[in-house]
Amino acid sequence: MAAVRLERIHHVGYVVEDIDAALPVYRERFGMDVQVRETLPEQQVEAVLLGSGPGHVELIRPTAPDGGVARFLERRGPGMHHVAFSVPDLAAALDELAAGGAELIDRVPRRGLGGHLVAFIHPRSSGGVLTELVEAHE
Amino acid sequence: MAAVRLERIHHVGYVVEDIDAALPVYRERFGMDVQVRETLPEQQVEAVLLGSGPGHVELIRPTAPDGGVARFLERRGPGMHHVAFSVPDLAAALDELAAGGAELIDRVPRRGLGGHLVAFIHPRSSGGVLTELVEAHE
Repeated sequence: MAAVRLERIHHVGYVVEDIDAALPVYRERFGMDVQVRETLPEQQVEAVLLGSGPGHVELIRPTAPDGGVARFLERRGPGMHHVAFSVPDLAAALDELAAGGAELIDRVPRRGLGGHLVAFIHPRSSGGVLTELVEAHE
Repeated sequence: MAAVRLERIHHVGYVVEDIDAALPVYRERFGMDVQVRETLPEQQVEAVLLGSGPGHVELIRPTAPDGGVARFLERRGPGMHHVAFSVPDLAAALDELAAGGAELIDRVPRRGLGGHLVAFIHPRSSGGVLTELVEAHE
């Protein structure tokens, strides 16, 4: 099987009901600042990227009742939603994964939070955990 | 509130039913090797640390039916269980967090997987997500 090398965790994504209510603990207890705050209409979410170093927390809340994140929140409650690894060349990583038979939610990179290129691997092909790849420009 | 700075994600911890059944996707698809495999009797788990860089995946399975991880698996099914951040001085970080009123599961560092010093913050004090701090010697 063709392998990509997932060496760095870019962020962990948490679903929350209310971003503003969730922020103080990260800011005041964990020393993380808001780096990006954005609404992603095609994902039906509002999201915030927090951090003070290379490892980030992404907070996500649904902006519509029928998107995937809204369904997750209804079914599972708030909490960990996905894990994102940095890769140097996302398009090449997706080609490798597809060649190895992985089921990809995004076969080609798309624009994610903060303008990074991102793509999601289906949990069926990533050990049951929703896994994102990020080509971060930082 | 006194703040620690959580800058680096050391690992994400996934609960699984069967470690050996879970390994191939990480090894063959994501290029991660087993770095440590250990039974932690006081936690009633067997755990594996996987990785090929600074960001790791930890797989955990319960070894007894009545531990916290066994209850998690029964209630939530397999999946993301906790997030661990690296800190340079764990005892100092725990002191800061306690001074800021955080509820700590481990008030002092204890030995974790691979001999690293670790401590857990209660989800009530970490945005609803079970959060581990690791003083990694690598």
